[in-house]
Amino acid sequence: MHCTVLINGQQTHWIDCADRGFQYGDGLFETISIHKGVPLFFSKHIERLAEGCRRLAIELPERKQIAAEAEMLCRSAGEGVLKIQVTRGKGGRGYRCPDDSNTTRVLSVHPSPNYPPELKRNGIKARVCETRLGINPRLAWIKHMNRLEQILAMRECDDPRIHEGLMLDTDDCVVEGTKSNLFLVKGGRLLTPKIDRCGVAGIMRALVIVQAKAHDMKVTLARITIDDLLDADELFLTNSIIDYWPIIELENIRYPSGTVTRQIGYWIDKLKQNEVHNQ
Amino acid sequence: MHCTVLINGQQTHWIDCADRGFQYGDGLFETISIHKGVPLFFSKHIERLAEGCRRLAIELPERKQIAAEAEMLCRSAGEGVLKIQVTRGKGGRGYRCPDDSNTTRVLSVHPSPNYPPELKRNGIKARVCETRLGINPRLAWIKHMNRLEQILAMRECDDPRIHEGLMLDTDDCVVEGTKSNLFLVKGGRLLTPKIDRCGVAGIMRALVIVQAKAHDMKVTLARITIDDLLDADELFLTNSIIDYWPIIELENIRYPSGTVTRQIGYWIDKLKQNEVHNQ
Repeated sequence: MHCTVLINGQQTHWIDCADRGFQYGDGLFETISIHKGVPLFFSKHIERLAEGCRRLAIELPERKQIAAEAEMLCRSAGEGVLKIQVTRGKGGRGYRCPDDSNTTRVLSVHPSPNYPPELKRNGIKARVCETRLGINPRLAWIKHMNRLEQILAMRECDDPRIHEGLMLDTDDCVVEGTKSNLFLVKGGRLLTPKIDRCGVAGIMRALVIVQAKAHDMKVTLARITIDDLLDADELFLTNSIIDYWPIIELENIRYPSGTVTRQIGYWIDKLKQNEVHNQ
Repeated sequence: MHCTVLINGQQTHWIDCADRGFQYGDGLFETISIHKGVPLFFSKHIERLAEGCRRLAIELPERKQIAAEAEMLCRSAGEGVLKIQVTRGKGGRGYRCPDDSNTTRVLSVHPSPNYPPELKRNGIKARVCETRLGINPRLAWIKHMNRLEQILAMRECDDPRIHEGLMLDTDDCVVEGTKSNLFLVKGGRLLTPKIDRCGVAGIMRALVIVQAKAHDMKVTLARITIDDLLDADELFLTNSIIDYWPIIELENIRYPSGTVTRQIGYWIDKLKQNEVHNQ
C-alpha cells in the first residue's frame, strides 16, 4: 500500500524544516485504525486531540476540515493506519510561541503493521525497560511529539521475541508500555496505572475502562509497582492499533492469557464491529 | 538577512514529514554564534553534538562534511546564528529505530536575535516558571529536540520586560533558564546547578567553568534551591548566543550586576575575540 500524505490539505510529504514540530517536537498526534474504509473511534481521537491542543495552547484546526480529509484518505485506503499530526506551525523566536496561530496539520495513511494475529489470541512476551519516564504533570496525558523516552526504551527491546517494553517512571511506578497502556487483573477486578504524572491517555484504555464499568467490573486507577505486576492474575496491553495483547511472559514470569482479558477482548472486538456497521 | 538552509548538503528547506525529527523529536541540535564569518567555538559544539549522538545512538554525520557546510554558510552570512540539527532520519516501525542509519543533517543560518546590548551590560529581569523540568538522567545533558517543557515555560514569560524564565525540576531544584544555564556567585565563588538529572550541558556554561577554574576561582556543581538564589550575591545566565546576562531582578528581588559577573564577562569576551583572530 502506498503512503498518502496531506499537509494542510495539499498532497505532499514535504514539511518546512522551520516548522516547530521539526524544531522542538512542538505538536501532538493521533494514531487511528482504519477498517473497511472507516477510521475507528474517530470522534474520540478528535476529542483527545482537541484536549491535547488545549493543554499545549495549540489552536486546533477546524474539526470539519480534519474529518473531511480523514474520510477521503480512509475511504481510498480501506485498511491501514491513519496518523494525524498537529503542530504549532512556523514562527516564534526560539522556544517563544508565535503571536499568530498557524497550526500545521498532517494526515498520513500507512499500512497496518504486520503483527501476527496469534499475538492477540495467544499473548506476547514483554520486558521491563531500564529507560524511565520522567515525571511531569504538564505533559502527562497528552499524546505529544516528544518521544525520545519511548525511542530509547524501544531500543532495549531488539529481541524479536519481545513485543513490548513496560516503562517505569523515575519514582519506580509502572506506567505503561512504550506504545501501549497496561491493565492488571486481580481477583476479577481491573487495575491500570494513573497517568497524571506521565504516560499517555490511550483511547483504547478509555474504552476498556468504560466497557468494564458498564459490565459492573470494578476498575481502579492506581500507582502500580513491580510487585503488583508479580501479584497480578492476568496482564494485558491496549492501543488503538493492536486493540489488546495479553502478556503471557514478563521477565521470565508466566501469566495465563486469562478469562477476564478474553472477556474484555470480546467487548472491544464487538465495539469495533459496531463502529464499522454504524457508519 | 535571508535564512539559508542546507539539508543533507542540498539547498532546500523542505524535510520529509516521515523524518523521525518531525515524528518524535528524535534528534539533537546546536545553536552557534557567527561573528565575522566564524562559527564561534565550533569544535566544542561538534564535540557536544557527537556526545549527544552517542548517548541517543544516532550516527554522527561526517564531521568534515558538517564543518565544510558550516564554513560555507557562515562565511557568506558574516554575522548571525548557525543552527545544526541531526536527526535519526526516516524509517523504523513506530518508536523502533531503523536498522540502517540514515541520519538527516540540517544546517541553517538565521539573523542574530535583536537583544538590546544593555541586557549584557546592565542585566535582565527573570522570573521563576511554574512549568517544571521532568527528571530523566537518560535525557539530561543532551541538547535534544524534545523541547515542550521549555516552550510551556516560555509561555509564562510573555511580559516583554521579562527576558528569561528559570526552571525548577519536579524535585524543587533550580536547574537552568528556558534557553540558558544559570550561575550563582556567593562569597566570590561560583555555583551552578548539576545537570545530571535534567538540563542542558551548555557550551558557554562549560567555558565559564573552565575560565573560572583557570583563574583560581572555586566552582561548585550543586543542587540549587530557591533559597540558594535568594542568598546569592550575584546571578547570571549564559548561552552561546547571549554570552552572559546578569540577572538584576528575579521575582521582585534585586541583585547587583556585580564584579564577579563582570570579571567572567570580560574573560568570555576575550575568548570570543581570540576565536575570531585565531581563524
